[in-house]
Amino acid sequence: MSRSPSNPKGTRDFLPSTLSKRNYIIDIIKDNFKLFGFLEIETPALEKNSTLLGKYGNEGDRLVFKILNSGDKVKKADVNSLKQNNLSAFTDSISEKGLRYDLTVPLARFVAQHQNELVFPFKRYQIQNVWRADRPQHGRFQEFTQCDADVIGPKSIIQEIELIKLYDAVFSQLGFNDIIFKINHRSVLTALANYIGAQNKLNEFISIIDKIDKIGLENVLEEVKKLINNDSVSKLSTLLIENENSMQTLNDLFGDTSQAKKGIDELTSILEFINDNKCLNNEIKFDITLARGLNYYTGTIIEVVSKSNTAIGSLGGGGRYDNLTSLFNLKNTSGVGISFGLDRIYLEMEEKKMFPDDLDNHFDIVVINFGLNYIKKLYPVIDSLRKNGKKISIYPEKTKLNKQFSYADKYKATYVILMGENEFNNNEIIIKNMKDGTQSSHSIKELNSSLF
Amino acid sequence: MSRSPSNPKGTRDFLPSTLSKRNYIIDIIKDNFKLFGFLEIETPALEKNSTLLGKYGNEGDRLVFKILNSGDKVKKADVNSLKQNNLSAFTDSISEKGLRYDLTVPLARFVAQHQNELVFPFKRYQIQNVWRADRPQHGRFQEFTQCDADVIGPKSIIQEIELIKLYDAVFSQLGFNDIIFKINHRSVLTALANYIGAQNKLNEFISIIDKIDKIGLENVLEEVKKLINNDSVSKLSTLLIENENSMQTLNDLFGDTSQAKKGIDELTSILEFINDNKCLNNEIKFDITLARGLNYYTGTIIEVVSKSNTAIGSLGGGGRYDNLTSLFNLKNTSGVGISFGLDRIYLEMEEKKMFPDDLDNHFDIVVINFGLNYIKKLYPVIDSLRKNGKKISIYPEKTKLNKQFSYADKYKATYVILMGENEFNNNEIIIKNMKDGTQSSHSIKELNSSLF
Repeated sequence: MSRSPSNPKGTRDFLPSTLSKRNYIIDIIKDNFKLFGFLEIETPALEKNSTLLGKYGNEGDRLVFKILNSGDKVKKADVNSLKQNNLSAFTDSISEKGLRYDLTVPLARFVAQHQNELVFPFKRYQIQNVWRADRPQHGRFQEFTQCDADVIGPKSIIQEIELIKLYDAVFSQLGFNDIIFKINHRSVLTALANYIGAQNKLNEFISIIDKIDKIGLENVLEEVKKLINNDSVSKLSTLLIENENSMQTLNDLFGDTSQAKKGIDELTSILEFINDNKCLNNEIKFDITLARGLNYYTGTIIEVVSKSNTAIGSLGGGGRYDNLTSLFNLKNTSGVGISFGLDRIYLEMEEKKMFPDDLDNHFDIVVINFGLNYIKKLYPVIDSLRKNGKKISIYPEKTKLNKQFSYADKYKATYVILMGENEFNNNEIIIKNMKDGTQSSHSIKELNSSLF
Repeated sequence: MSRSPSNPKGTRDFLPSTLSKRNYIIDIIKDNFKLFGFLEIETPALEKNSTLLGKYGNEGDRLVFKILNSGDKVKKADVNSLKQNNLSAFTDSISEKGLRYDLTVPLARFVAQHQNELVFPFKRYQIQNVWRADRPQHGRFQEFTQCDADVIGPKSIIQEIELIKLYDAVFSQLGFNDIIFKINHRSVLTALANYIGAQNKLNEFISIIDKIDKIGLENVLEEVKKLINNDSVSKLSTLLIENENSMQTLNDLFGDTSQAKKGIDELTSILEFINDNKCLNNEIKFDITLARGLNYYTGTIIEVVSKSNTAIGSLGGGGRYDNLTSLFNLKNTSGVGISFGLDRIYLEMEEKKMFPDDLDNHFDIVVINFGLNYIKKLYPVIDSLRKNGKKISIYPEKTKLNKQFSYADKYKATYVILMGENEFNNNEIIIKNMKDGTQSSHSIKELNSSLF
């Protein structure tokens, strides 16, 4: 192979300094998932195509990475379908499995499959990679990490409250204080669609409204015009322009249908609970324009945005879905969950310099290498320091001192331990503090972790 | 979809109790990787086929999962190759990417690609999944986790010593005290092949020797007979039967060639360093029959076995490879690394009941749910307990008490907090200790984490 090697487009290698920042975020998310009583599960990257396909719409099906059947099985390729340009039948003939596209459909499959082994209500979190055959572009990847928490079983809105509180706990701990949690309800959107006469075009209506942050109100109204008559557009326009819609306004407008009333009541209870408790460090706000793209939501929907950087899009989102597990023959099981947008949170924290300074300090101690015999003499000490939790890298070979110090420097080691010929003969070592440049001599015997 | 859903054969779902045990092992491995100065990287699951293929032998190439090109690209399917039964050409026409097969080839690609961003010597660890299209069978999976630590750059045997010490630290911390680290050197095996006249059949010889634990000495000798003459077989037999070959014996037999001498000297130095230091809790032993299957090893090879359960096979293995990065145009860069066999370690620990008892205690506290208003009153307390690190699950809906207690019980919660109507009116709560069944009343104000 003569070309220079590279990872596939749309994928990423993570070097240690990037990864330590990513893991800083993931660890805080994970800690809070646990504090809120979520338990971790993992599902395989490979799922049957029958599990994956038909859950994300046509566009989603297209974006699922399919795995080629192994060995002789490719002989079953349906060449006729290929000739007739029936690509999906051709694909079906040579692929039975694909890579998971999100963590929600695998969760629904998991819960249906293992229902007799699980204790319900089942609160799980899952932090794993997903794959999408999207065209790679800046900030959009074919392989990325999702961080999800979901509750399966109960319908009580205490879940919505807990999930918002969980969001707030994570973002506060990461150092965000300018977050808005936008909240809406699919019943309210349905009522809104009814109100403007778009009841038969609910999904189109929702996908247009969903674009309001990207294309603006004017363009949304322009697109809505294709669905409904002009009078209705101006009714919608008035509602959306006011924007600060209170629950009371909604009640007056839509409260006469039981479905809308359910949504309004749930939103009211959630907002009251949270506002009375003053339990958030960040802000929560009802937003009638919040739609969330995914078809499977049926109740509350939530989105996380940064006030100081709306351009980056949402930093997380979620909602309630009542019928997802029924796709896998588990009926009457409500689910509600949230997801963290790891890549965007990372970008935002990087831009605002929100990461702690010492994440990059890879080693506590670098041991300068004067040769095998020297290391041999030092080894019991190194052993005992490691047992006391010190991260120690022995420079891997005997070489020039400046090269070894440069290594310690580049990896931001806090201390360096030296034992040259004199020290070897006197059973001593020198500790150099790499931050302030000071150094001190010690007999090997007195060396212990309190010196570092 | 009417059939019951399931994950693909050869893959696994991990439920919380299994996962907490797996993570217990992984965390100990990870902690020790860090203590020994290894830094974490991640590479994508997807690699170009040009990176993956041709590195693992023909059998390996066959076992790489290939990804079907997306969308219209499948139209380029080379139907003629299919007709001519040239399956690899057909596959090439519809697949450009595959799933990584191990972590070592991606590491070599990574190091070559990022050589200007990395500080050498480069010590990395990586804990990620790999995929192999092996026929699924008991204990063999198509998707599994590898845990690798490798040093790229230096040739000094201090790495081999550190890696053995790292193995020992991990296995000791996991509770193993009956481990043997077997060690050999590819130069010694080459010398042995020369000694019996199999110098031109080195790879075949190595792959036969490699099977000695599975098929026994008799069968190995039987297979070797196909390679060499009878006299040589009896020379080999004598050597292998003696088994306790000292470095001195080897030196007498093979020490006259410089290559063999290098291997013998390195093994001698490693064993001396470790034995003089008495730094292992487990045992290290030279084993001339240790071969390790992979073609890319060129120096020391290591394998971890349990004395009390040899049937399970190796619990880890590794070695030195001098030429791997040269496949990706980075010359003269030696590598040495080890890998932990997570699944086998898990099985062995499960069988010997080596996991701590409390891994399954999923929650510190379950809060019994008497309705939204009750939770509202308790919420500030719950908040403050979580801030003090208590893992708390609020039972997700108001329902029968026995159902809620059964939930607390099944998830092995340590405590339950109750606030019924009386307690609500008196601003009190009841704490029930689920281990000993005792309970106590407290005013909400005095509630704090020291009570748990």
